[in-house]
Order: sequence, then C-alpha cells, then structure tokens
Amino acid sequence: MEYSLGEIARLINAELIGNADDLVNGVASLSTATNQQVSFFVNSKFQSHLKNTGAGAVILSYDDVDMCPVHSLVCKEPYVAYVKVANLLNPLPEYKPGIHPSAVVDGSSSIAESACIGANTYIGPDVEIKDNVFVGHGCIIDSGCLIDDNSRLMANVNLYHKVKIGKRVVIHSGVVIGSDGFGLVNDEGRWLKIPQLGTVQIGNDVEIGANTAVDRGALDDTRIEDGVKIDNLVQIGHNVIIGENTAIAGSAVIAGSVVIGKRCMIGGASAIAGHLKIVDDVIITGLSGVTNSINKPGKYSGSMTTTENMTWRKNMVRLRHLDELARKINALEDKNKA
Amino acid sequence: MEYSLGEIARLINAELIGNADDLVNGVASLSTATNQQVSFFVNSKFQSHLKNTGAGAVILSYDDVDMCPVHSLVCKEPYVAYVKVANLLNPLPEYKPGIHPSAVVDGSSSIAESACIGANTYIGPDVEIKDNVFVGHGCIIDSGCLIDDNSRLMANVNLYHKVKIGKRVVIHSGVVIGSDGFGLVNDEGRWLKIPQLGTVQIGNDVEIGANTAVDRGALDDTRIEDGVKIDNLVQIGHNVIIGENTAIAGSAVIAGSVVIGKRCMIGGASAIAGHLKIVDDVIITGLSGVTNSINKPGKYSGSMTTTENMTWRKNMVRLRHLDELARKINALEDKNKA
Amino acid sequence: MEYSLGEIARLINAELIGNADDLVNGVASLSTATNQQVSFFVNSKFQSHLKNTGAGAVILSYDDVDMCPVHSLVCKEPYVAYVKVANLLNPLPEYKPGIHPSAVVDGSSSIAESACIGANTYIGPDVEIKDNVFVGHGCIIDSGCLIDDNSRLMANVNLYHKVKIGKRVVIHSGVVIGSDGFGLVNDEGRWLKIPQLGTVQIGNDVEIGANTAVDRGALDDTRIEDGVKIDNLVQIGHNVIIGENTAIAGSAVIAGSVVIGKRCMIGGASAIAGHLKIVDDVIITGLSGVTNSINKPGKYSGSMTTTENMTWRKNMVRLRHLDELARKINALEDKNKA
Repeated sequence: MEYSLGEIARLINAELIGNADDLVNGVASLSTATNQQVSFFVNSKFQSHLKNTGAGAVILSYDDVDMCPVHSLVCKEPYVAYVKVANLLNPLPEYKPGIHPSAVVDGSSSIAESACIGANTYIGPDVEIKDNVFVGHGCIIDSGCLIDDNSRLMANVNLYHKVKIGKRVVIHSGVVIGSDGFGLVNDEGRWLKIPQLGTVQIGNDVEIGANTAVDRGALDDTRIEDGVKIDNLVQIGHNVIIGENTAIAGSAVIAGSVVIGKRCMIGGASAIAGHLKIVDDVIITGLSGVTNSINKPGKYSGSMTTTENMTWRKNMVRLRHLDELARKINALEDKNKA
Repeated sequence: MEYSLGEIARLINAELIGNADDLVNGVASLSTATNQQVSFFVNSKFQSHLKNTGAGAVILSYDDVDMCPVHSLVCKEPYVAYVKVANLLNPLPEYKPGIHPSAVVDGSSSIAESACIGANTYIGPDVEIKDNVFVGHGCIIDSGCLIDDNSRLMANVNLYHKVKIGKRVVIHSGVVIGSDGFGLVNDEGRWLKIPQLGTVQIGNDVEIGANTAVDRGALDDTRIEDGVKIDNLVQIGHNVIIGENTAIAGSAVIAGSVVIGKRCMIGGASAIAGHLKIVDDVIITGLSGVTNSINKPGKYSGSMTTTENMTWRKNMVRLRHLDELARKINALEDKNKA
Repeated sequence: MEYSLGEIARLINAELIGNADDLVNGVASLSTATNQQVSFFVNSKFQSHLKNTGAGAVILSYDDVDMCPVHSLVCKEPYVAYVKVANLLNPLPEYKPGIHPSAVVDGSSSIAESACIGANTYIGPDVEIKDNVFVGHGCIIDSGCLIDDNSRLMANVNLYHKVKIGKRVVIHSGVVIGSDGFGLVNDEGRWLKIPQLGTVQIGNDVEIGANTAVDRGALDDTRIEDGVKIDNLVQIGHNVIIGENTAIAGSAVIAGSVVIGKRCMIGGASAIAGHLKIVDDVIITGLSGVTNSINKPGKYSGSMTTTENMTWRKNMVRLRHLDELARKINALEDKNKA
C-alpha cells in the first residue's frame, strides 16, 4: 500500500513543498518516522523533533514550514489531514466472505454473500446480516437482529433479540447490546421486574468500545443516533437517547431515560442521573456527577480536585460543616453592618 | 396470549369500570396504546395523554377515574398493578429442553431433562443444572457449579468453579461470577497473590446486569442474598455480603468485605470502601463515595453538584483552601466578640 | 497435598513451637480451622478467636505467642508468611496439555506441547503460545499474539491482534486487551477515527481482573510493566504506561497517554485524566479524580465525604457559592483591619 506525495497532497488538499513522486507507505511520530513514512507537527513542544525528523514528509501549517527539514504537506488543519492520511495508508483488514464452519447459523436468518461470520459465532432465527458485514469470532446475535452494510462486530459481541445496527458501525469485544434495563418496582418490600419490551436502535457510523453495555428500552427503544462514539466500559441505561455526533468517554454512566443532545462531549467516569435532558453542544468534563438537566450549551464540571491527603482531610472536615460556616459569615456581616 | 379485562381485574384486584369480556394482548404507553393494549396513569404530567388515549383500558387510581375516556382498571397501586399485567401479557420466551449439539458438556455433570443448554456453551465436570434452567449460548460453567430450578443465564455468562446459583435467578450477558478477588500482600516491594479459596453463593430471585463482575471469597464465600437486584457493570469485591432485596444501580463499586443490609438502595456510580458495614434500609444516592460505615437507616449522599465550568473552577480553588477560610472566620468571630 | 509443620517452618523461615511432624493440608480462619489447617493472627480484634482456635498451627509474631493455645509458627511478617503457606497448600489446578477438539486453531500458529487450549477457543494466524500456557474455554486470541511461558488466561479472554503477554501472567474472564483506543478528531462536526496502529505489551507476573479493558496504542504501544496488578472493570486507555509493581483497584479509569510510575497504588473507582504523569510511589485513595500530574511521592485524595442527605444538600448549596463566601470573608477581614 504505497502512495506518492502528490496523491496524498491532492487527497488532503495540501500544498506539497517537495517531490511529488516520492512514495510513502505509513505514518509515524516525528522522532521515529523513516523516509517512507508521513508525520505531522501541530504542537510547538515538539519543535526539536521536527527539526531532526527523518520522515518522508511532514504535514504542518503555513506558519511552521520554515522549520521543516524534509518535504512539507502544508494545510490549514494539519492534524485532521494527518488522520486522513493515516486512514488511507492503514486500510481496514480485508476479510474473506463466508461463514466459518464452526459457526452456528439458524436456517431462517439471511446472511449476505459478501458478509463474513467468524468461528464459534451463533446467529439466531430471523437475523438479517447485510453486505460486507463482518461478525467476529465468538459473537452471539440473537433472533430478529439486523446488522446493516459495512458494519464490523469484533470478537465476542453480544446482541440480544431484535437489536438494529446501522451502516459502518464498529462494535468492540465484550459489548452487550439489548440486555434488560434496570426496571423494578417495589411491591411490599420485594422487587418486581418490569418487562423490558423495547429494543435498541444504533444509527450509522457509530463506534462502541470494549465491554460497554447498552440496555434495551422498557416500552420504547433505546436510541444511539448517527455518528455517536462511545468508549469502553460505558453504561447506557434503558430508553436513553443519544444525539448525533456526541462522544462519550470511558466508564461514563448514563442512567435510564436520559436524553443527550447532538455534538455533546461527555467526559470519562462522569455520571448523568436518570430522566435528565442535556441540550446540544454541551461539554461535561470528566468525573462530573450531573443531577440536573442542562438547558444551555456550554462547558460544565462537577469533579473534586485531588490534593495531598492531609490537606484534603482538613478541607473535608470543614466541608461537612460548610453550611454552619456560611451562617457564621452572614452573622459577622450583619454585626459589622450594624 | 389474550386475556379479558375481567380476568385482568381479578389478577390485580382492581375494580373494572367497563366491559369485562373485552380482550387485550399487550401493554403500551398512553399515547401509543391500541384498543387491544392496557396502559397506566400515575403522573399528572401526562393528563393530556390520558384524555386522548386509545388504550383498551387504563390502570389508575380512584382519584383519576373521571378523566379516563376508556375502560378503567381502578386500584390503589396502579403502577405495581400495571407491572403485574405487563408480566402476564409478556411471558418469558419458552425454550425447548435439550443440549445444543455444539455445546461441550463434561460427562460427569448432571443436567435436568427440562433444562436447555445453548450453542457453543461449555459445562465442566461435576456441574449440576436443575429443572427448567436455561443456559444461553456461549456460556462457560466451570467445574462443580450448581444452578438451581428455573434460573436463566443469558448468552456469554461465565461462572468460575463451584459457584452456586439459586432458583429463578436471571444473569445477563458478559457477567463474570467467581473470579479471584483482588487479594494481595506486599512482600518487599512485590505483590504476593493471596489464594482465593472461597466461592460465590447467589440466592433465589436475584438478577445481575450485563458485564457485572462478582469475585469469589478469599477464605469464606461472597454472598448475594435472596431478591437482590444488581444492574450493569457493577464491581462486587471478594467476601462482600449483600442482604435480601437490596438493589444496586449501574457501575456501582462495592469493595472487598463490605456488608450491606437488607432493602438498601445503592445509587449508580457510587462506591463503598472496603470492610464497611451498611445497615438495613439505607439509601445511598448516585455517585456517592462511602468511606465510613453507616449505622442508621436513612438517605445518604456524597456527590458534588455539577455547575457551569467557570463557577466550578473558582469554587474548587476556594475548596482547596477551605480549612484556611474556616480559620479566618473563627479569628474574625473571636475579634468581634472581644 | 500435605506438609509437616517442620517443612512449613523452614519454608517461611519461622520458629516452630510445637510438633514438627504434625501434618497440615490447608489454611482457614482462626474460628473455622481444624487441626489439619494452618491459620494466622495479626489483628488484636480477633484475640478471642486465637484463644479458642482449633487450628493445627497459627502463624503469628513473637509478641503474641503466649496467647496461642496450639502449635505456633513464629515470625516477623506473619501475614506474608501465611500467604506463602496458603499458596503452598493450594497449588494452581493442573491442566492436561493439549488442544480441546472443539477449539479452532489456525495452522500457522505455534502452540507448545505443554500448553493447554480450552473448548471453543479460537487461535488465529501466527499466534505463538509457549510452554505451560493455559488458555481457558471460549477465548479469542487474534493473529500475531504472543503468550509467554506459564501464563494463564481464564475463560472468555479476548486478545486483539499482535498483543504480547509476558510470563506467569494471569488474565481473568471477560478481559479485552488491544481494542482500539478512543482516538477521534473532529472534522467539521463529525468524528474522524484515528487509526490505532500500536499494540499492547503486558510484562511478566501481571494479573488483570474480570471485565477490564486495555486499549492498544495509537502509534506507540500501551505498556503494563512487570508485576502490575489490576482489579476488575478497570479502563486503561491507549498509550498508557503503568510502571512495575503498581496496583490498580476495581473500576478505576486511566485515560489515554497517562504514565504511572512504579509501586503506586491507585484506589478503586478513581479516575486519572488524559496525558498526566504520576511519579513512583504515589498512593491515590479511592474515588479520587486526578486532574493534574503528581510530581512527588505521597498519598493523595480527592473524593467527597458521604453524609446524611439533608446535611449534604445544605452544604452543596453553599459549595456552589463558595467563591462568594470567600470574598465576603476577605471583605470582613479588610474592614476589621481598618
């Protein structure tokens, strides 16, 4: 997989300062790249790496061209351009179409000829698997699921019945989609299970990280819309709706019936309480606990700063009495005014 | 699966205002229900939905009967009654007894004739699987496990050796039960593993959510008692004991040797530090970090409120110096008293 | 598996007060041990258990010998010594070498004759599995992986392509190693995936708990060094480096490109933000959110204390206005000075 610098310049709409016929076959960081690899420069911290790079070409902005000792691919958004080149030079592995002989496939399912089904995978009744879909080894696709064109399920993905997966979706190992939501009602001291009758709809171009769990809806469906990216070990409760192009980082917890808007960024290890609404274009920083709906775009935070343990202990003792402290201050103010 | 409104009224001990012979076959929300479906009304926010519903019947309380345009099923606890009807009209899927030909079953195990063992599942030596148990596809049940009557393990559940599962238990995909606890002792800078010699006992009527992990005990057993409900991605350390009918929401972390009482509710993303005791009837709200035992029933909280990022930054700077602030206040008070 | 007390005393370098020929075959707590079992005493809370123990021998320190009613194994670090005895008397289960007939093994892989490959496991092309390795049931080992001598993968472990595992490593069920890191760049409102071209290197003597996920590196590799111990449901982002003998407790979240030093202890449910550096010998207590690099060894904390709900509500209202409170105090101080 080789491309000339000329071809690459055209692809990323960059100005090439250098030899258009030189061939490259990979990407690497400035300090490790060989003359057959492309690198990028966006962070002035790495100036010395740029000046000493052995890369075949460096993608960078107009301001930085003078520092570059090798061929330059000059453009406005060097990092985005770099990612496009990295994808070009590292295409997804190709899979031979076909069903592995160890797979167990129900006769009523419909599997496109161009699809690939891995070893020891189970495909249940009435499943529909469309063109160029890859289902890895050890997956379990229960009855009535649909997986649309060009989606890839890595090894050991679990889909409960009737889950719908869009096009070009990537689902990583250990993901569970469509498990029962945590729907319980207390009946004289014992928990009665609320049947979870909805399912899960995953849009196009979604990616879901390893060991994440997405529950099916209680009556309506849980919905992950187009372009949403979800990291590892994220918990998505029943009836959650996540708007287009929102990104959710590792180990976040989205409780049941939360509705998140478009283009939001939910930080790692943050948690959003049940039934809240978050509008479009909200950023929630890591480890924040969200307990009220957010009605205005912007950046929100709610994590505590970590400090040296002795300082923290003293501050936490005071925090436990913060209301009393505030009353003291108000009393002092009144006294001083009088 | 059809029932008459008369049969349903008897089942949930409701007064039927309407035609006892009308048949229904499902449940739905007020706004989507057809005249063959039952709905419910408990939240005055949805009054307009009630007034315009096309449901076959609505379960509601005496106070709300006048607003209902269709047959009414009137009772004291409409939501509990609705859940009972939902379960009645949506029975669990039936499974054909038998062992899938692709399953690997050790000859020394004992599997009831009424049990169902899924595709590509492994059943180890000396396992006992009792009446009407369903073990889904791709499960691994290691040596010496016991699964009691009417329990259901969804696809890809992992039981380590000697784990005991009670009756009517539901375990979701990706759950691991009986993995080694995090037992380490530091031996001159290196970690020495403490052998984990106990196992895990799961009582009756327990439900465990997707990708949750429950560690085996070090010497004694980890114990989940009858009626406990655990959500997805929960971490249960070794030697934890969870009392009857306690519910634990998603991504909670219960560290080793914690003892939780009966009828507790542990909020999502909360964490309980090792060796603590929580008495019966304690509610811990979401994202709370519990670092002391709780000796009195009640509601406890420990999460931080999320606010707009700039406000949060200023407050966090102050919080880091809260002890100094408190000292200033006390000095001011002394001065003002003098 | 029986040992004489004399043999055990030699192994742990203890002074035996009692009969060197007595045989023992297990370990147990003071209150449950029989006369063929060894127990230990380190916590004065259990003095009455010691005085009434029926153990065959008790491991304890010189100071406590007088209280011991049975044979004593006296040494300086009784708990470490106990763990060594527990390991001696509870050796790892032995596995018969060989490949289960239901396993799917690519012909280009190289599997040592002494290795054991479980049922329904998949081994991809160019995998190398060395001496005495145990790969449990239902594992998926993708192309180009290496598993070095004496490592044990429990059931249902997933290794993506080219992951390298050292010697004597233990990996628990549901672990995913080598999934794509959460590498995204925003390209005019849509997320562009950054190809994840590195892999994961796991050193010797590492243990990884159930359902933990370790992402592969973007360009360079993610690296878990020798002797690191990781608990259940931990999230390790791409390009993280974890230094020798560091321990990470359950449900911790280590974001991308974090570098953690040697001999650190990272508490359960804590989270470390991306790109931070933590030096050697740092302890971070549970549920702390780390948002700055830590440059000095020591103990650090950042969790909030959980209190009774009404107290917490009042304090949180004040906390939201802490900056204003602090300004009031400073104004009062100025006024009082004047």
